[in-house]
Amino acid sequence: MAGNSFGELFRVTSFGESHGPALGAIVDGCPPGLPLTEADIQTYLERRRPGQSRFTTARREADQVRILSGVFEGVTTGTPIGLLIENTDQRSQDYSDIKELFRPGHADYTYAHKYGIRDYRGGGRASARETALRVAAGAIAQRYLAATAGIRFRAGVVQIGPHSTAPDAPDFNWDEVGNNLFFCPDPRMAESCDQYLRDLLKAGDSVGARVRLEVQGMPVGLGEPVFDRLDADLAKALMSINAVKAVSVGDGFAVAGQLGSEHRDALTPDGFSSNHAGGVLGGISTGQPLVAELAFKPTSSITQPGTTINTSGEPAEIVTRGRHDPCVGIRGVPVAEAMAALVVMDHLLRHRAQNGGVNHSYPDIENSG
Amino acid sequence: MAGNSFGELFRVTSFGESHGPALGAIVDGCPPGLPLTEADIQTYLERRRPGQSRFTTARREADQVRILSGVFEGVTTGTPIGLLIENTDQRSQDYSDIKELFRPGHADYTYAHKYGIRDYRGGGRASARETALRVAAGAIAQRYLAATAGIRFRAGVVQIGPHSTAPDAPDFNWDEVGNNLFFCPDPRMAESCDQYLRDLLKAGDSVGARVRLEVQGMPVGLGEPVFDRLDADLAKALMSINAVKAVSVGDGFAVAGQLGSEHRDALTPDGFSSNHAGGVLGGISTGQPLVAELAFKPTSSITQPGTTINTSGEPAEIVTRGRHDPCVGIRGVPVAEAMAALVVMDHLLRHRAQNGGVNHSYPDIENSG
Amino acid sequence: MAGNSFGELFRVTSFGESHGPALGAIVDGCPPGLPLTEADIQTYLERRRPGQSRFTTARREADQVRILSGVFEGVTTGTPIGLLIENTDQRSQDYSDIKELFRPGHADYTYAHKYGIRDYRGGGRASARETALRVAAGAIAQRYLAATAGIRFRAGVVQIGPHSTAPDAPDFNWDEVGNNLFFCPDPRMAESCDQYLRDLLKAGDSVGARVRLEVQGMPVGLGEPVFDRLDADLAKALMSINAVKAVSVGDGFAVAGQLGSEHRDALTPDGFSSNHAGGVLGGISTGQPLVAELAFKPTSSITQPGTTINTSGEPAEIVTRGRHDPCVGIRGVPVAEAMAALVVMDHLLRHRAQNGGVNHSYPDIENSG
Amino acid sequence: MAGNSFGELFRVTSFGESHGPALGAIVDGCPPGLPLTEADIQTYLERRRPGQSRFTTARREADQVRILSGVFEGVTTGTPIGLLIENTDQRSQDYSDIKELFRPGHADYTYAHKYGIRDYRGGGRASARETALRVAAGAIAQRYLAATAGIRFRAGVVQIGPHSTAPDAPDFNWDEVGNNLFFCPDPRMAESCDQYLRDLLKAGDSVGARVRLEVQGMPVGLGEPVFDRLDADLAKALMSINAVKAVSVGDGFAVAGQLGSEHRDALTPDGFSSNHAGGVLGGISTGQPLVAELAFKPTSSITQPGTTINTSGEPAEIVTRGRHDPCVGIRGVPVAEAMAALVVMDHLLRHRAQNGGVNHSYPDIENSG
Repeated sequence: MAGNSFGELFRVTSFGESHGPALGAIVDGCPPGLPLTEADIQTYLERRRPGQSRFTTARREADQVRILSGVFEGVTTGTPIGLLIENTDQRSQDYSDIKELFRPGHADYTYAHKYGIRDYRGGGRASARETALRVAAGAIAQRYLAATAGIRFRAGVVQIGPHSTAPDAPDFNWDEVGNNLFFCPDPRMAESCDQYLRDLLKAGDSVGARVRLEVQGMPVGLGEPVFDRLDADLAKALMSINAVKAVSVGDGFAVAGQLGSEHRDALTPDGFSSNHAGGVLGGISTGQPLVAELAFKPTSSITQPGTTINTSGEPAEIVTRGRHDPCVGIRGVPVAEAMAALVVMDHLLRHRAQNGGVNHSYPDIENSG
Repeated sequence: MAGNSFGELFRVTSFGESHGPALGAIVDGCPPGLPLTEADIQTYLERRRPGQSRFTTARREADQVRILSGVFEGVTTGTPIGLLIENTDQRSQDYSDIKELFRPGHADYTYAHKYGIRDYRGGGRASARETALRVAAGAIAQRYLAATAGIRFRAGVVQIGPHSTAPDAPDFNWDEVGNNLFFCPDPRMAESCDQYLRDLLKAGDSVGARVRLEVQGMPVGLGEPVFDRLDADLAKALMSINAVKAVSVGDGFAVAGQLGSEHRDALTPDGFSSNHAGGVLGGISTGQPLVAELAFKPTSSITQPGTTINTSGEPAEIVTRGRHDPCVGIRGVPVAEAMAALVVMDHLLRHRAQNGGVNHSYPDIENSG
Repeated sequence: MAGNSFGELFRVTSFGESHGPALGAIVDGCPPGLPLTEADIQTYLERRRPGQSRFTTARREADQVRILSGVFEGVTTGTPIGLLIENTDQRSQDYSDIKELFRPGHADYTYAHKYGIRDYRGGGRASARETALRVAAGAIAQRYLAATAGIRFRAGVVQIGPHSTAPDAPDFNWDEVGNNLFFCPDPRMAESCDQYLRDLLKAGDSVGARVRLEVQGMPVGLGEPVFDRLDADLAKALMSINAVKAVSVGDGFAVAGQLGSEHRDALTPDGFSSNHAGGVLGGISTGQPLVAELAFKPTSSITQPGTTINTSGEPAEIVTRGRHDPCVGIRGVPVAEAMAALVVMDHLLRHRAQNGGVNHSYPDIENSG
Repeated sequence: MAGNSFGELFRVTSFGESHGPALGAIVDGCPPGLPLTEADIQTYLERRRPGQSRFTTARREADQVRILSGVFEGVTTGTPIGLLIENTDQRSQDYSDIKELFRPGHADYTYAHKYGIRDYRGGGRASARETALRVAAGAIAQRYLAATAGIRFRAGVVQIGPHSTAPDAPDFNWDEVGNNLFFCPDPRMAESCDQYLRDLLKAGDSVGARVRLEVQGMPVGLGEPVFDRLDADLAKALMSINAVKAVSVGDGFAVAGQLGSEHRDALTPDGFSSNHAGGVLGGISTGQPLVAELAFKPTSSITQPGTTINTSGEPAEIVTRGRHDPCVGIRGVPVAEAMAALVVMDHLLRHRAQNGGVNHSYPDIENSG
């Protein structure tokens, strides 16, 4: 309850600071019998790993995950899975000059006032480095959901500053996400972002981003109203990612301008005829793809000087050097997928608990997912 | 864990269907010593009560709340507070003609498939009627927070279809919220909405809405990273309200287009110089006003015929008569305030638990709240 | 988390004071499809209802339960079940003379110091009256477990002061429990208790009791090590009943004097050859009957004068009049069954969530249950 | 919720198998500002470490704990504390001959049937080795409680087979616990146990034990009725320790034979005149010492042959060689202290959350603790 656990039945609890000896997580509640190796998880970690391109932080972390428990002879046993990633490239000295300063846009000020103590090395617990463990835990969920239920998580950057795309754009293609440095499903947008971000780096600035998420192959019936709705838990999951400031499901904020006659998705014997709802009605999955978008703020760690105060409350100027992403939203893509997987996994288990034996006579309509 | 509880230390658990005998809630964790009467709670319930204007459902519910426990001689005792609202105006017969139909845009289809059983009377548990108990529970939190910490919750409708306003509009004034039927802080917008909604009612249609929420007087330090961030819990709380499809904090989705140099809020000895962050950094409150927006979809219950299927999967046409709000977002205003109050209250208690004895030397900067 | 909820997936949250308007509970997580009426629950409540014999409190409560939600057309819907019992025979005036006194052996002193406020009417929240809701909620679990898994809960008083029995006593017979006023499985013991308790009542005193509990038809595999072991959760459940001071499983405290060679239960192709373990190994059910015992302290409300202090800390003498059970352990029997049912039900759902799809090749050995 | 977490606000989540690469735990919710080093925790671990005497398992584990997070410059920061103990002396080959056998009295059979998969190396997750992390986490709680509230945990073996002692024995002295191999507060009992256990080892058998626990310096007011009573949570905590079969508070099972007039503890201006209640009334601490006892079953791993079945269900004989304690209750002493500390710590934080600001006028009576 102190905030470092996520999920009820598939529960991830994490620890670790940016510049401490290691980060780790415990995944409790993974069903037994899932084939799982360190390499399986590593594949997912590679996607968010820093140091892979000029557009992500230059910090080089091996991010090698170890499975310390819960797997025996290559298969999960049902007992808690201990995960560990040692920190290998912590240059704490980089931070000595900001020890006495609160970086604007960072959590320095709030951590200091909340706890009365501040681990100033690279953001400490508030660092995005913590999301590596989210990806590792999410990888387990993604593998389980893919193997047992055919559920697949897709995410990509659909906006960086002035450049954006949408599913109805001519070149939008989920399979393109892996083909560029921006996890962008639209190669044209990716191309324009390349020069845009180069210029931004030179200017010592950063930019925000918007990520689109689709969960394909969703079963109908996941979500626990009235508070633990599927969309409510997804909103929490995504908003809990560093730098995220907004989350929407289906048509999102556009619904404020819609009429009932245009928003509601008609049901037909062949399935829903549209998906304005984004795959959730009354907090329960409809069987259509679960669709969400989330916005990442621009990194506050930029080399342009900023106005701030020091820990004594006196005015100061700050220049954050360190090694930082010009657009944190890019590396947020695998994190968004991971968090969505944790939500869907948890709700699958919760649904199984309460409704495992339900036999009803309502016909399923067809949803291709 | 079956979904009908919200909060950890100030925990609300609710029950009740739209057309059952009664709805109720248990508020567990309210500190002892708070003066509390049924009339205190009733004041808040009156704001969301149906039947008050032509723009909300014609259903007439007294919505009279009873306090069944936890209060002795006018003061909370620290034991759980039982709340009960009897249903008095349930016209179940109104729903007999939709018994065999899944209303598009409603939770009929998902409830039926999740549980194998469907209480078709007015939406059953999925009805917005459930939010009455959120308002009642939230009223207790709001009273506690106002009395002990000077925290105040303000919300208002800032968009209805094509009509919108913003805090920098010339007539925007929080004190106007109580002066019109739309909980709108801008009297000009309220005026244009009046005719717009009259026309909509005639056309048998409905419309979405956007609500803005501000929490004033926030202390610094509330929120439990990394998962139970203040903004993450707020996102869940607001997204769990019926019909909500999007939630944002601070600048929201606009951050995807911002540069780091424009987004980050500078710190000065006199406080933050702006509030792009919306009062949260690293998931912890900054002491500035907590600012959020949320979007409500248009009611799916409209008199325009819709395409659907019946419970045997055959195509059908549906016309929802019943008594419904043309714009559910309007009555969502007190619900949004209530949910925000539950989040802040819970985090206040959680902070007190872990950090009750913190004495630190970091100077607070001034925030007017 | 404020203490008034029990269970994770089958979660009961209760409220209500001894002399308030009503007591109630919300049962969240009951699977859909269970036939359930108020009469079904009432049957269980009748067993613990006061005013039924000279050996239980003379207070006469109808204890009529109402189901306010979660049941539609006679069947549970999967949504939360609201339960309500109105108080009808509260004679608060009986307590005015103890308003300023802390009754020894009661929770008066601890409630007053914990909360700073004390509802002195009949024990307030600390009254055993609260257990009525445990029985009501437990009834739902018992019905589900009986109907779907053939699990049966049996409990009986096996010691009252100097009078005791044991399963190997010649007249011990679970079917006798309903045939005497003491819920005693041994008619000889029941007979001796009759005169013993009459004398005790005359003397204005009370006596403790020991209850034995057996759960028959247990499946193998329930329990979640390492903390939420089946026996650990059972211990909490039983120790949470008013007046209980000790809980044991299987051979209980006698194991401290046993050798490994005599304690361990041999496995044979026909099942375990003994049940020293009480049906739990490593915190997981073995498939044998789950066996536990619990001890109730004697009621502290007796007419013999006692030494105490008043709320100003001054010495005082107290005589508790009111209407009280001479042996609270007797009415503890249905409460113990109910709490055990809540534990087994919760663990059945938890097991189903994580291990729903387990297919393994280990042969089950035969256990008659 | 999958069973490997304990506590609400001071929450310990653990992982690790007897013969895996490492065991670990995350302590979430530790208040900031507590001085803490690895050496501080190591002191507590040394007490339960195997290989220290002929009466505990010959396995030699360094049990060196690493703090991986949550401590900065020697002080806790309020973020989660990651703890890790690498396994160094796993001789898995010792277990190859029992791979196909279910050891009687062990969790082999139940784990295999629950999960369909069994880590047969030394008990896997069911091994008492897991309790090392309980001790490490409990050490943090004990240090906090000692430093901030003067609360002290004392436990000792008061029965081993036929040998026992009690607080009123002439030589009973808590300070003797550290002076013998049995954690026994009575040197006479310790002396007789020495020869008794030597003989038992020769005979290839094991024996049970009873441990007494006292928490001194308890504040009044801890415990959250009606379910999360202090004694109920303590019962769960202690029953969750490997091999524990019974737990009692205060006079324990003896209360079944007591009269109300003898059991209830009189209140006087100088404090309670006795402590039959064991420091808890109505589930809330009285300020007197919290007193509990617990019974450990004899180790089932003995060299005397036993009757069992193999994993195909066929009858077999088993001799457990490995390296095992003849009396697991002895090493249970520091574990019992640790679990009690987790309970008290959690309830201290919970009380602080809800009742942090209570000011009442009830005078405290004196309790020496």
